[in-house]
Amino acid sequence: MKSVAVRNIERADAEVIAGLAAQGVATVHEAQGRFGLLKPYMRPIYPGARIAGSAVTVLAHPGDNSMLHVAIELCQAGDILLVALSSDNSDGMFGDLLATSAQARGVRGLVIDAGVRDVADLTAMQFPVWSKAVSAKGTVKATPGCVNVTVVCAGCAVSPGDVVVADDDGVCIVPRLGAAAALEKGERRHAAEEVKRKRLAAGELGLDIYDMRSKLAAAGLEYVE
Amino acid sequence: MKSVAVRNIERADAEVIAGLAAQGVATVHEAQGRFGLLKPYMRPIYPGARIAGSAVTVLAHPGDNSMLHVAIELCQAGDILLVALSSDNSDGMFGDLLATSAQARGVRGLVIDAGVRDVADLTAMQFPVWSKAVSAKGTVKATPGCVNVTVVCAGCAVSPGDVVVADDDGVCIVPRLGAAAALEKGERRHAAEEVKRKRLAAGELGLDIYDMRSKLAAAGLEYVE
Amino acid sequence: MKSVAVRNIERADAEVIAGLAAQGVATVHEAQGRFGLLKPYMRPIYPGARIAGSAVTVLAHPGDNSMLHVAIELCQAGDILLVALSSDNSDGMFGDLLATSAQARGVRGLVIDAGVRDVADLTAMQFPVWSKAVSAKGTVKATPGCVNVTVVCAGCAVSPGDVVVADDDGVCIVPRLGAAAALEKGERRHAAEEVKRKRLAAGELGLDIYDMRSKLAAAGLEYVE
Amino acid sequence: MKSVAVRNIERADAEVIAGLAAQGVATVHEAQGRFGLLKPYMRPIYPGARIAGSAVTVLAHPGDNSMLHVAIELCQAGDILLVALSSDNSDGMFGDLLATSAQARGVRGLVIDAGVRDVADLTAMQFPVWSKAVSAKGTVKATPGCVNVTVVCAGCAVSPGDVVVADDDGVCIVPRLGAAAALEKGERRHAAEEVKRKRLAAGELGLDIYDMRSKLAAAGLEYVE
Amino acid sequence: MKSVAVRNIERADAEVIAGLAAQGVATVHEAQGRFGLLKPYMRPIYPGARIAGSAVTVLAHPGDNSMLHVAIELCQAGDILLVALSSDNSDGMFGDLLATSAQARGVRGLVIDAGVRDVADLTAMQFPVWSKAVSAKGTVKATPGCVNVTVVCAGCAVSPGDVVVADDDGVCIVPRLGAAAALEKGERRHAAEEVKRKRLAAGELGLDIYDMRSKLAAAGLEYVE
Amino acid sequence: MKSVAVRNIERADAEVIAGLAAQGVATVHEAQGRFGLLKPYMRPIYPGARIAGSAVTVLAHPGDNSMLHVAIELCQAGDILLVALSSDNSDGMFGDLLATSAQARGVRGLVIDAGVRDVADLTAMQFPVWSKAVSAKGTVKATPGCVNVTVVCAGCAVSPGDVVVADDDGVCIVPRLGAAAALEKGERRHAAEEVKRKRLAAGELGLDIYDMRSKLAAAGLEYVE
Repeated sequence: MKSVAVRNIERADAEVIAGLAAQGVATVHEAQGRFGLLKPYMRPIYPGARIAGSAVTVLAHPGDNSMLHVAIELCQAGDILLVALSSDNSDGMFGDLLATSAQARGVRGLVIDAGVRDVADLTAMQFPVWSKAVSAKGTVKATPGCVNVTVVCAGCAVSPGDVVVADDDGVCIVPRLGAAAALEKGERRHAAEEVKRKRLAAGELGLDIYDMRSKLAAAGLEYVE
Repeated sequence: MKSVAVRNIERADAEVIAGLAAQGVATVHEAQGRFGLLKPYMRPIYPGARIAGSAVTVLAHPGDNSMLHVAIELCQAGDILLVALSSDNSDGMFGDLLATSAQARGVRGLVIDAGVRDVADLTAMQFPVWSKAVSAKGTVKATPGCVNVTVVCAGCAVSPGDVVVADDDGVCIVPRLGAAAALEKGERRHAAEEVKRKRLAAGELGLDIYDMRSKLAAAGLEYVE
Repeated sequence: MKSVAVRNIERADAEVIAGLAAQGVATVHEAQGRFGLLKPYMRPIYPGARIAGSAVTVLAHPGDNSMLHVAIELCQAGDILLVALSSDNSDGMFGDLLATSAQARGVRGLVIDAGVRDVADLTAMQFPVWSKAVSAKGTVKATPGCVNVTVVCAGCAVSPGDVVVADDDGVCIVPRLGAAAALEKGERRHAAEEVKRKRLAAGELGLDIYDMRSKLAAAGLEYVE
Repeated sequence: MKSVAVRNIERADAEVIAGLAAQGVATVHEAQGRFGLLKPYMRPIYPGARIAGSAVTVLAHPGDNSMLHVAIELCQAGDILLVALSSDNSDGMFGDLLATSAQARGVRGLVIDAGVRDVADLTAMQFPVWSKAVSAKGTVKATPGCVNVTVVCAGCAVSPGDVVVADDDGVCIVPRLGAAAALEKGERRHAAEEVKRKRLAAGELGLDIYDMRSKLAAAGLEYVE
Repeated sequence: MKSVAVRNIERADAEVIAGLAAQGVATVHEAQGRFGLLKPYMRPIYPGARIAGSAVTVLAHPGDNSMLHVAIELCQAGDILLVALSSDNSDGMFGDLLATSAQARGVRGLVIDAGVRDVADLTAMQFPVWSKAVSAKGTVKATPGCVNVTVVCAGCAVSPGDVVVADDDGVCIVPRLGAAAALEKGERRHAAEEVKRKRLAAGELGLDIYDMRSKLAAAGLEYVE
Repeated sequence: MKSVAVRNIERADAEVIAGLAAQGVATVHEAQGRFGLLKPYMRPIYPGARIAGSAVTVLAHPGDNSMLHVAIELCQAGDILLVALSSDNSDGMFGDLLATSAQARGVRGLVIDAGVRDVADLTAMQFPVWSKAVSAKGTVKATPGCVNVTVVCAGCAVSPGDVVVADDDGVCIVPRLGAAAALEKGERRHAAEEVKRKRLAAGELGLDIYDMRSKLAAAGLEYVE
């Protein structure tokens, strides 16, 4: 693997990104046809954060955080660091110092297919992280990787500039060129869900709202007293 | 597997169920002779909930939540939805819309051997869930399963109408016909534990309270200075 | 395996232990050269605790908590119970009664390579625990193990009297004889980090602070526009 | 849990059992409507065995093989020992001595939701085992469990006398009373598969044999050049 | 996700593919700079197979094998079916009937991020499979997915026509356009390894052959008597 | 962690080592009181090997095999390389070139808490390996670790010169100074097992041979017709 850092990437429109953040992961994932979800082992280090931003992608080696430093210089305000690993590892590759640096540059959060540490500090700083593990095991700065190439992170291909949406339900990737369309579909979905929510809250059943009874009967469902 | 939904099930006495909720999972599990515990990968989506209710059981297929809609119609106030899967899966088969519907029908909570989503909303609604995973991956409504048949959920056989007890320690199943006896044994156990707790808090040792010294010596324990 | 309980162990200096608690796991782990970390599956049952204390080690059998009772008698105020298992198991071997007893004796917390239960009570009592699992499954008192022998807990060898440091990042073991040196190195590291944190917060880059640019270029990193 | 050993159990017809063995796990599982499969972590210790027999069920405690000795006395020629555990464990609870005893009594094989050892000997003896793990860690004989009660083994409820079918694809349980019907359905399925196999071997496509083209088009599949 | 099947894909040169098969996974992976490896949970169902072929990619839903039938029609002799799943699942989505069909069309093997069944038959047919699991649990034909789109399989992005190399060490993906270059680098690497192998077999040390002594000393390695 | 390689270590007597190899892992593990077993995820890459030898211990970093080269120079004929990792990793850190070098120096085999590759070649060479994974992912030679210090490998502390016994049941460590005693106990155990094997093969029951009936009755076992 050649070691490359790409300085300039395209980003999605800031208002579109803000809109996707407001919708949240579950709605965005549905709206774009149920793809782009990272595997569910990616969990937030504290509950309640909901962000979206442009992916600055990193391909790092296990236990080596040098490319995170390279990536931070290439971030703009509003970006999200998204770190893939060259092989499985859970070492704590990011802590309060890197978070301080990232926050100073306007980075909105971190998604990393490995471990993080200093989670009490990161929580106090309200710097949100979605990771595979928490581990105090630190890193070296030895082998260069890549910044802003297409990577596979937690089972999903991510290109630089793709929109990362993350909340308590996990992390979803929206391809940059599909972001505006996803937002629009998500808004329609959201509106439709509001209608359904009111009907369900009033005691109507999904069986009726979704017109499921005849389909289930046709598929063989029998009711027994 | 034939697709069946059983409308009417027997339930345990409401006061017995309330009593089991008050005792909590650890006491109930001990009281009924240490069986009925779901595997420990079943975790609450937020801390602090403690509920008990009658199981409305669901056997669903991976990524298909149609039978949850069928089940909600068959629930009474005070029931708990307990969902087993026909094979391992972690998709988010339940979210805020289904929770709105379930809450409107008086369902007390959900136990599901798969994933859930909209966990921030579910937390805000205080609709408690014990699940294997959190995942935004949604579901289809394609293949019918069963409601109110005996299922195996997270390693434990559960029949409709069995009492589900769930809190921060996990989930325990009490067979319907054994619920009253378990409650009574749990109360005796609870009383005995109160006495022990006071003695232990005063500095007495378990070694003396449980009369363990001679047994351990007989079993070969040697003290060394 | 012979069953032995060693009554008297050497402990590190109380001020050194307090200093290590203040530094926390990540700093201590770095300071002593990146060893001594328990595997990252060891997680706290509630966030926010940060403790250090002398290890009273226990080697227990799956589902048998008799040696925890033996160990509590041998604890002094300020000790931490550290429990290794003779084979993999996740049963809940420690609950509110044992915590009451331990707290009455001044024990600061528990590290256990198995499960715990009554976690709502333990949280209310603010008795911190780092464990592999939460499980309501209780234990018997049948087969003796050992207290205060060298054990392997979550992938790390621990001798009685070693200093256990635990916080939201996990658990780190400091050998008793190396505790003072680790504290001193940690203080130097902490001071150096404070300087770096200020520079990073002001927008300086790790690439410059750590003088990484030439090294990365020498290692083959190429920047692309 | 009360400790009970049931001496006499009903068994399915020997010819039916032999027929199910000949069909193998995948056919039997399909024939009875896709239930009864143990989780796929249950693997054979050597390839090539294919057996069926009546389940003599055991509920054992982790690291305690006393109930296997109790069960062997209650086995008849043609039975299969099926061992569930009271909590997760991978210790080697069965080895060449128990296999010698079981083979002397005509037991056809072992299915155990834990570990086994002496696997080179068991392979040489051609005593087939399906287990969760291989582990040399031996066991004690301390706490009694149950024989011939309904157990949950690797995610599936099994009653004494149910037919266990096991081969390289895993383990499937056929309820005793449904064994004859499953055999008959399996034979029809087998015959139908033979016809399909010939057509497929001749180059016909499943798309045509199963008449899938119109259904897939209706479900939205589009072909693109 | 829109359901699409792409009929025509570009393939790498047949001689290049044959050359990559001869080199095997470890050499090819090194030769192309250590990327393209599927996660190590992908294991062959029997030892000894070593193949390479052009990927016909499938994106399937858990427990639904309809797209495998669609894909087989689109395969040419020498292709390899490579199946990614829309979410984690281990059901047995491929068995002896599909293998008969695939073999009749000249398909060389299967790589699937899920389960397979009939492994004894597949072994007898010498139809090689690399999978995440073995499971007898069959599938439905309900929800269409995609054929010949870029998928993420076991942690690696794969495009239709990429070269799949698979042997006892696992599975490696070579991008179609890089196949010839990878083959050439692999041949140089292979030749260099032959020289090293002879020197090592004669007792020379890697420390000397790779000129490691001074570098290790510079990195801090100290020898102690 | 300071990087150290210790040149000279004490070894157990060669005849004792040969005797332990003949006994195998299960017997040796029992004979020394059931400790020293590596976790059961350590599996042989091919069946049928049974070896014992003196441990030359290695502490390596994930994805860095430089210390294996250092260790091979320090091995004598009859030694076994035992490799622990500084954090969890499954990369293929050992392949046919290192095996050629090791075999040329008389090394008997490898035990590694990580991955290996070239397993078809290693099998053809009959160079036995017990590992956590098979992975083609290669390694760098960047960060030095240690040779011949005490390490924790797969959950067990191992000192240089300890006897490693490995076969199809896994890997067991015998402390160097306890090797002769373990051999003697194992021989007595082996002789006693031979007697039992004959009695069991003749149809006697373990219940009678081990005199279990009265103990089980006293512990509460009830027989039911």
